[in-house]
Parts: sequence; structure tokens; C-alpha cells
Amino acid sequence: MKVVCTKENLKKGLYMVGRVVGVGNPLQVLNNILIKTDSGRVKLSSTNLEIGVNTWVGGKISEEGALTVPARIINEYINNLPTEKVSLSTKETTLNLESDNYHTNINGLPADDFPLIPQIKEEAFAKVDADELRDALSETIWAAATNESQPEISGIFFSFEENKLTIASTDRYRLAERKCLLKTRVREKKEVIIPSRTISELYKILGSGLKDVEIYFSESQVLFKFNDTELISRLIDGQYPDYAQIVPKEFKTEVVVGREDLMHALRAAALFASESNNIQLEAVEKKGLVIKASSAQAGENTTDIQAGVQGLNNSAVFNHRYLLDCLNVLPEARVVLKLINDNSPAMIVPEGRDNYLYIAMPTKI
Amino acid sequence: MKVVCTKENLKKGLYMVGRVVGVGNPLQVLNNILIKTDSGRVKLSSTNLEIGVNTWVGGKISEEGALTVPARIINEYINNLPTEKVSLSTKETTLNLESDNYHTNINGLPADDFPLIPQIKEEAFAKVDADELRDALSETIWAAATNESQPEISGIFFSFEENKLTIASTDRYRLAERKCLLKTRVREKKEVIIPSRTISELYKILGSGLKDVEIYFSESQVLFKFNDTELISRLIDGQYPDYAQIVPKEFKTEVVVGREDLMHALRAAALFASESNNIQLEAVEKKGLVIKASSAQAGENTTDIQAGVQGLNNSAVFNHRYLLDCLNVLPEARVVLKLINDNSPAMIVPEGRDNYLYIAMPTKI
Repeated sequence: MKVVCTKENLKKGLYMVGRVVGVGNPLQVLNNILIKTDSGRVKLSSTNLEIGVNTWVGGKISEEGALTVPARIINEYINNLPTEKVSLSTKETTLNLESDNYHTNINGLPADDFPLIPQIKEEAFAKVDADELRDALSETIWAAATNESQPEISGIFFSFEENKLTIASTDRYRLAERKCLLKTRVREKKEVIIPSRTISELYKILGSGLKDVEIYFSESQVLFKFNDTELISRLIDGQYPDYAQIVPKEFKTEVVVGREDLMHALRAAALFASESNNIQLEAVEKKGLVIKASSAQAGENTTDIQAGVQGLNNSAVFNHRYLLDCLNVLPEARVVLKLINDNSPAMIVPEGRDNYLYIAMPTKI
Repeated sequence: MKVVCTKENLKKGLYMVGRVVGVGNPLQVLNNILIKTDSGRVKLSSTNLEIGVNTWVGGKISEEGALTVPARIINEYINNLPTEKVSLSTKETTLNLESDNYHTNINGLPADDFPLIPQIKEEAFAKVDADELRDALSETIWAAATNESQPEISGIFFSFEENKLTIASTDRYRLAERKCLLKTRVREKKEVIIPSRTISELYKILGSGLKDVEIYFSESQVLFKFNDTELISRLIDGQYPDYAQIVPKEFKTEVVVGREDLMHALRAAALFASESNNIQLEAVEKKGLVIKASSAQAGENTTDIQAGVQGLNNSAVFNHRYLLDCLNVLPEARVVLKLINDNSPAMIVPEGRDNYLYIAMPTKI
């Protein structure tokens, strides 16, 4: 292999593939990145056997070839390099990098040792605006179960129907759901569960300024493709819980409240709810929202927030983390909090937007 | 106690005292901050029994008093508070905080339980410009021994003589020394060893925009005083090594080199010196500086840096961390590297400044 790349291109490419690769894996090649000439460009690949990433960067190729080198070394080396261009060439299993006054040989392993990242031959199943997908992920992915003993809900639910993609996550105590508009109608309804790790990697490498993300499926795999990058992952087998049935259709109380006001009050209360995480929300007509917490050890806090309350006076106890997780990620200045009673699911939606909902179960005390 | 403070004042004061206090100390009062009315202001105090901090903030006092409350709770509470003013009042061992719509009681402990922070009655021994002291600390404190088995060199050496303060630290493999100008001559020569922890706390709370720092001593204590804050610490008993004797008077080779160039080259080499940390520096007349490292496992790197070399060609092996620690903190664009041979101390000084020197011992290979 003989290639000349700009440092910036190589750095961006290594960033894309550098996150799913192992560190200190006893199977050395899994700590490595595959560098390969491919149809006039340089292809970089990494995998942790569950997720694979391929990305292509521009370069001047004068000899074809392929080699794997340790991800940590090549990444840190290129990031630190103060020069503009770098020449890469291979000699057996050594990668030589020449760049002005920097002369370096990195010991690698043959490209043949690198695990095959599966290819999906199908056509694109769906296409979605990259920014909308990124926003949708930021509003949902943190609500999935962290415990893998329930594999279905440890993943993120993607449901495609007509021109809509619905993304949902739940840990059975709360649920986040966001609908996105697809660029074209899908040819059939499709529901899949994608590992949280995959989606959180996707979220991290989905930078801003991208255009569209194409989504491909094979029987057991999903592939996300955007710009010059592909992320491939297995799917989770199983049936996602039919969560629609727990989303209440009607509420007794609706509170329109400033998101930051509510967050400040919840954080103040949280300091006095350290053992149980329990804080009490009370909606009082004409008065607003009262947030309370107390502990025998730390003390107690009450905050009154001006808020528009419609319907019955109402009160329920929540884990403050569950409410803050949602409020943290919404961009709107105001949210609508909907209550039934202290034993039924409560809902948070952003004011003036109907593609997102969040459900939290009250704590029983 | 009945006091009204601005949130900003209280927040700044709590930041000053919030760093030396314990978290989860079984003696609960050591996790607490003492809040006390004092001569028309509010005094905040914390201690970890080795270091004590007092700071005074403005406030409208309508009733004198004192109480201790958990540092973590009051700190996070005040930081999160979105309001401008806060009223503090005590009822037995409870601190009540009222601020617009925020109503809070924090459980505390009696002020009498709080350990006495020693007072130093002497006059100020020395006075130094705050920015100069801060710069001097940033250039020295990281070179002290981290192992407390040699207590003297685990501390930072302060030596006062006439109108000079010399600050030094060493771990026996390297030495950093910086001289500061005092505002007035000291009345007698004085040498002390101050715990690293104390100096690193001082460094962190010595913000920019301060004027002078006054330094006081009692037999076994030191006190730093600036603006409305005092930091008090024990001194370390013992004799600091007479390091002047290991500072070479003459060198065989002097290399003037760009600091960033050298740092980039050292970081590139470091990737190939992961087991030993050993990198080789070679000064070659008319050519410059050559930085090299290699390892059987990772590979090898050579970087040539343009540099002005005066004197003999020379070469020595160093721990790259020892060189980078120093280069990281110097503000100058160029440094002078001085060598004798591969077995004698090397020196780094910033170009055009004579109040700082750094000595590193070569590695024997």
C-alpha cells in the first residue's frame, strides 16, 4: 500500500472508527483498525464483533494494499501530528508514516486476520434527516433498561410505518417516545430492537451538518449509512413490549410550567431526597406547582413554581432522576406535565410539539 | 443567626472553603462548613485537620450566631439556586434558607463541635504579587515526590531571603525551581517545607485578578492571606535536600528549540516508549534535535526538529513525562535545553527568562 492523505481527513476518519474498537483485548487484532485502499479511497474499519464501522477518506493512492494497526497508537499519533499531509506505506506487517520531519513505523497485523464485517446487499429501507434523527435519539436513548437481564428493553425500539419512524425506549418505570418523518414511505411496516450500545455509538458519530441517514436491514443486522460512514450492528431478538396500552388517553390535571424553573426546583429538592430519590409534586389551581422533599438526615425543601394548572388539584411522588433525565434534553422553554393520580402514569410533553412524549410512573410510598 | 447575602457572594465564598472539607468522613462535623457572623460579615470555615480555610463574605446581619452544615448540601443548594438573594437564619441546629419561592431547612451541627482552626497572631512575614505566586506554583508544584515515604520532598520548599522567595520541588530525579520577587525585604532568612496538598489547594483558589498574597508563620504553621480568604496549614518537619549542589554550573551543549515542536515530537515518541518511557534526545550541530523511541511491540518513531545547537554534539535518554511536565507549563515559545552527557543532569530554562530552571536526570540504559 502507498497512499498520501491529509492529516485532517485521516483524523476525522479515525475518529469515526476509533470508538468501537477494543483496548487491551487479548485477541490483538480486535484492538486494531483496518486500513485498506478501496476504489480510489482509503477505507478504515473497526469492529467489536457486535458493532462494525467503515468509513472512507480521500487520498492519493499509488499502490493498493491493506494492513491493520493498533487503534490507540495510530489515533494518538495522527491527532498529535502538527503537519498537513502524511504518506502511508506498508512493508510486510509494518505501516510506515512519513510526514515532513516525522518518520514512523507502526507494527501491525495482516489484514486477513481482521474479522469480516458483514455486508448488507439489500437496498436502503428508509431515509431520515440526520439532524432529526440525532434530536430524536437525544430525547429517547437514555430511558432504556441498563440491566441486560431483559434483553428486549435493554435495546431501542425502531418502528417504521408509511412515512413515520417511531423511536421508543423504556425500562418499565418510564417510557420515552419520539416520532420522526421519513424522507420517503417505507415499502412495508417493520419493527426492530437495536442494542443501546449501537444507538449510542451512532448518536456520538452523527455530527452536525450531515444530510441524510439511510437505514438498511438484513434478517439479523441493521446498517446506518451517512456521508462516507457505515455503522453495522446485530439486532436484538424478541418482542418489544406493547407500550401503547400503558400510555393514558386522558388526564385529570395539566400543568404548563417553565422547564428551567422545574429543573431548578427538582435539583434543590433532590438534595433532600438522597436516600429514596422521592420528591413530591403538587399541582394546585391558581397557585401552581409545589415541589417538596425531606429526609430525617439532611433536612427539607419546598419550592413553589408559578405554573398554569388546569383541571383537578393533584399530587404524586416521583424519582427526581426520572423527571430530570427528560427535562434535561428537551429544547423547549416550557413543558406540559399531565397527571391522573398518585398511582397512575404521568406524562411530560414539550409545549407546542406533538412528536414527543415521556411517561413516568409515580413512586408508591 | 439572621443574615441576608447575595447568592453570588455566598457561592464564591463556598467555593473557597468547599475544597478542603471531607465527604463521608465518619466524624460528621468534618464534612461540614462553619457559618458564623463575624464583625459585620459572614465567615465561612472548613478544615480537614491538616488544612483550614476561612473566608469572609458581605451580608446584612440582623442577629449574630453560628452553625455548621454539610458542605455538599449547602454548596450544591446555593449553586443551583436561580434567585439573587438568600436569607439565612438558624433555629437550634437547623439552618433555614429563604429565597423568593425557595424554602429550605438544612440539618446542621452546633458550631462548638467544629474543630478550632489555629490563629496566627504574628505580623505578615512576606508579601508577594498574587499572579506571580500563581505562575510560580504552576511551574513547580508537580515536580514534588508523590510518595510520602520521604516526607521532606513530598512537600514544596519555600525559601525567603532579602527580597526573594525561591520555590522548589523535587522527587530526586528532577527538580523545578522558580524565584519570585517579594514586595518588601523579609526581616530574616527563612526556609520551610509546605505540604503539596496545601500548595495545590492554594493554587486552585488563587484566582486571577487578586492583588497581593501575605504569608504568615507560627512555629509549625503557615498562613496565606489574600482578599477575604485565609488558608492555614501545618508545615512539614525536616531538612530539605541541599539541591543547589546538583545544579550544574556548566554544560557542553545548548539547544534553543520551539517548545511546541519539542512537545509534539516527544508525544509522538511517547507512543513507542510505552513500556520504559525512555526516549532519546540527540543534539547535532547544524542539524538540530533528533527525538527517537522504539519498542519491539509497537514500532519506532524518529522526529527531526530544527533547533539552534551550540557546543558539542550530545545525546541522552529521558523519561518523556519528565520533559513534558515542564514544557506543558512554560508560557514561552522557545526553551533552552542544556546537556552535559548521558549520565549528568540536563537543564531546561525558558528562553529570555532567568527566574526559572528545571533539571531532569537522564535515564540509565
